Amino acid sequence: MIEAFSFVPPLRRAGLNPVNLLMMEILLSQIAALVQGNVVGDPNKLIRGVAPFETAHEDEITLAGQAKFLKKMDETRAGAVIVASGVEGFSHNLLQVDNPPVAFAQVMEFFHPPAVPEAVIDPRAVIGRDFVCGADVAIGPLAVVGDRVTLGDRVWLFPGVIIGNDVVIGDDTIIYPNVTVYSRCRIGQRVIIHAGTVIGSDGFGFAPNGDQYYKIPHTGSVQIDDDVEIGANNTIDRGTFGKTWVRRGVKTDNLVHIAHNVTVGENSVLVAQVGISGSVTIGKNAILAGQAGIAGHLRIGDRATVGPQCGVGKSVPDGAVVIGSPEMPHKKWFRLQRIVAQLPELKKRLEALEKKLQQMEQRNGKGF
Amino acid sequence: MIEAFSFVPPLRRAGLNPVNLLMMEILLSQIAALVQGNVVGDPNKLIRGVAPFETAHEDEITLAGQAKFLKKMDETRAGAVIVASGVEGFSHNLLQVDNPPVAFAQVMEFFHPPAVPEAVIDPRAVIGRDFVCGADVAIGPLAVVGDRVTLGDRVWLFPGVIIGNDVVIGDDTIIYPNVTVYSRCRIGQRVIIHAGTVIGSDGFGFAPNGDQYYKIPHTGSVQIDDDVEIGANNTIDRGTFGKTWVRRGVKTDNLVHIAHNVTVGENSVLVAQVGISGSVTIGKNAILAGQAGIAGHLRIGDRATVGPQCGVGKSVPDGAVVIGSPEMPHKKWFRLQRIVAQLPELKKRLEALEKKLQQMEQRNGKGF
Amino acid sequence: MIEAFSFVPPLRRAGLNPVNLLMMEILLSQIAALVQGNVVGDPNKLIRGVAPFETAHEDEITLAGQAKFLKKMDETRAGAVIVASGVEGFSHNLLQVDNPPVAFAQVMEFFHPPAVPEAVIDPRAVIGRDFVCGADVAIGPLAVVGDRVTLGDRVWLFPGVIIGNDVVIGDDTIIYPNVTVYSRCRIGQRVIIHAGTVIGSDGFGFAPNGDQYYKIPHTGSVQIDDDVEIGANNTIDRGTFGKTWVRRGVKTDNLVHIAHNVTVGENSVLVAQVGISGSVTIGKNAILAGQAGIAGHLRIGDRATVGPQCGVGKSVPDGAVVIGSPEMPHKKWFRLQRIVAQLPELKKRLEALEKKLQQMEQRNGKGF
Repeated sequence: MIEAFSFVPPLRRAGLNPVNLLMMEILLSQIAALVQGNVVGDPNKLIRGVAPFETAHEDEITLAGQAKFLKKMDETRAGAVIVASGVEGFSHNLLQVDNPPVAFAQVMEFFHPPAVPEAVIDPRAVIGRDFVCGADVAIGPLAVVGDRVTLGDRVWLFPGVIIGNDVVIGDDTIIYPNVTVYSRCRIGQRVIIHAGTVIGSDGFGFAPNGDQYYKIPHTGSVQIDDDVEIGANNTIDRGTFGKTWVRRGVKTDNLVHIAHNVTVGENSVLVAQVGISGSVTIGKNAILAGQAGIAGHLRIGDRATVGPQCGVGKSVPDGAVVIGSPEMPHKKWFRLQRIVAQLPELKKRLEALEKKLQQMEQRNGKGF
Repeated sequence: MIEAFSFVPPLRRAGLNPVNLLMMEILLSQIAALVQGNVVGDPNKLIRGVAPFETAHEDEITLAGQAKFLKKMDETRAGAVIVASGVEGFSHNLLQVDNPPVAFAQVMEFFHPPAVPEAVIDPRAVIGRDFVCGADVAIGPLAVVGDRVTLGDRVWLFPGVIIGNDVVIGDDTIIYPNVTVYSRCRIGQRVIIHAGTVIGSDGFGFAPNGDQYYKIPHTGSVQIDDDVEIGANNTIDRGTFGKTWVRRGVKTDNLVHIAHNVTVGENSVLVAQVGISGSVTIGKNAILAGQAGIAGHLRIGDRATVGPQCGVGKSVPDGAVVIGSPEMPHKKWFRLQRIVAQLPELKKRLEALEKKLQQMEQRNGKGF
Repeated sequence: MIEAFSFVPPLRRAGLNPVNLLMMEILLSQIAALVQGNVVGDPNKLIRGVAPFETAHEDEITLAGQAKFLKKMDETRAGAVIVASGVEGFSHNLLQVDNPPVAFAQVMEFFHPPAVPEAVIDPRAVIGRDFVCGADVAIGPLAVVGDRVTLGDRVWLFPGVIIGNDVVIGDDTIIYPNVTVYSRCRIGQRVIIHAGTVIGSDGFGFAPNGDQYYKIPHTGSVQIDDDVEIGANNTIDRGTFGKTWVRRGVKTDNLVHIAHNVTVGENSVLVAQVGISGSVTIGKNAILAGQAGIAGHLRIGDRATVGPQCGVGKSVPDGAVVIGSPEMPHKKWFRLQRIVAQLPELKKRLEALEKKLQQMEQRNGKGF
């Protein structure tokens, strides 16, 4: 038996209070109460599941958050449809809410409650000295916890997780298998770290010494604040001095690289395969699209957007939208793309002009 | 002793029947029988190994699959050369086959038979409840198998592999060290998954909620069909609803990212560091070259080719070859590259025209 | 207790000889002796730490290696400043050295000595048959060492490291958690491999066989020479025949991909997310910037520099600096970027010329 690796469904984390957990069925009015919405139609409609627009059955609830779904409303067989406040005029049972995607996610969470482990430290886990362990912690078999580690309440370490010495992890944080956290890193509350991710490896710093390189020690660490989610197989290096800092609410996709001494501001989003060089500062609520790369020591502004595969060589102002490699304002980029596509034609027009002018000259002689 | 981590060579997987396994020597005629080829030269030539064209010794067999090797045939000392059917006129012993590279791979496999473990579940592995275990399964020490897992015959799990609850894995599948498979994923027969890969992590889906993000539960899973090979340190996310689907015969290189609800069609190839956004559908026999990225919800057609570092922003038709960021047909891209390289010269020609026209105007006065 | 996972500070690796380890304080003259420098100012100044220019306290030493720091010398409160030989004329205590960044790294290493484990093989590690073990080896719990493995003196394997059969590892090499080394790979002395990296996975080689692919066996291995540092979550494939070879002094950042049969020359640097295709040869002291990609079978010359996100499709000569996708000499690239940015204006000028010429024609009639 692998207690800490099993799933039991008390919905502890979700904080929801289902009517009938075993049957997983609930009245539409109860869902409305859950998501603070308003029913248009039958409040006693029994809902047994949640599904996408195209495939929902008559006892399931779905989402029509965007106008394109409202236009084809007759194509869904769903027993109820989550819509924005004010949307009406359909024969379906409607659940009007302020934020349809969030309400839909909440309903998904109700029908698919997050797994919760038994609060057991598996005897096959390895626990170091001077362990400070919160309540209801679950540690899977073959996880390793170093010396002087502090875990908050309800922390869940999956099998194969390796936690270095002197690490601190906050309440309700989940770390999936085969994650490595180097020594002295600090991880906040309600953080999720997906499998294979490495937190706290040495930054990439070497001092040239003739033809060779001398390794610069990395004496700092990594701090990950509350409510962060880190994707699979990320790499987040520790600071040379001080910390690499991933601030509250940041979300990273898979295979993201964050170098030493980077700060990622609150609620910013790093899409898959983004690479951020050393000492970059990213503001709040920025979005870096997939495979974008940021050169060292730059600042990406609050609410800035960096396009996919963008190569950023200069700092980006607050609210700017940049794309291209090297980056430029997206409007300029789109204009340039259009002109570049016309280059064969423009070249022909240039040649036509040259020919015409030559003919004029020939016709008029040198004395023209 | 780590039985499940040791190599013994009964060639079980290869299905080959060597003449003299200890000596690893075989007649050229026997190789011909193995690969269904035709000997031109000495069928009794004794072959003791396989090697590249440039370095093969007189008792080794090599490959001259391409015309460039035929042109320098006198540069190889190999005792036999695999060539295409119909190739002759050389003093070497030739082995004519329909598909020289495949025949060469088969001969390599004969001389370097794939490792086969002893069919032992190491006592230091961790096995969950309600385990359904096929015949001749090998599980290395410190592998973890969750609850209600089903393994087919001859499955080989290396040390450090973590298999979540309710996972199903088909016959003859090999999973290398430190791979993580999240709960409920399904993996087919004869699948190979290289070390460090993560299968079934949550998709990157969050509903904006003011300045913050609300996590969208990922209730789906990942399905990997038969004969797939997944490289090292890949990340394949589970579906939001339903499955992320890697279909039969797909091959992925290292560090490939496949997002939630992607379908990769049969026999398609994803080269290293490719990134595929959510809900993309890739057709059959497509090739995505290294570091290419595909934006969300697109379709890449059957037999399409996407060039290296290509950034695909629109769906790609069947059979198309695209390159560039943003993508365009490769012929257009090559033409544009040529013109862009001429831009300094074209600019000078434009300036020369302007000057000439100005001179004409000056010479002729305003009244021209 | 996890002996092999604990940190004790005898400074064994650093080879330094601190005056007062517990207090971690030292005279400036002693630091001068350590780094072979020359004190200008008070040789008896007591130094208790090392810190960045902006944040150093009065009992700490800092670095002013670049001219920009010399210009704002009055902004640091540091008790001593490491400068280049010949720099003087400041009121601070100066430590003149030939190579300030290297001296600073050495001083950092003194104050932050690298962790050294107790020389213990944890009983929860798994050790295969015919193990050849050097002196003072440290192996953490839940590491796995295959059969016939040879470890040099003072090798340190962290928890979760998986070492395949027949692997050889040299003296003083450190391998961080969850690294996988496939069978038969060879790793030199003083090598550092960060967490999650995979060494020796099969190269990405398949022979097309109709619509399907036939796997090409990878019979070679990986050789990593002395003084190499490999970042986190790298993937280095084994050779098809022969070896993939990472030569002495190479440094790789995180998420780097090195394909089968690649050679990376001495002291070359691969920045994060670089991808190198099969059979590429990289010379000595080359630098490949972040997210660059190299197509197969090319040669990157000695001391060549490949820019960030560069897509290299042709071999690069010794000493060349290339950038762009496809790559070109960086001077050409910068010139083209400037002209591309002018394209909207150039197009207008072309149109103005066309209009003017048309007016001339109209004014002069067809008979012009």
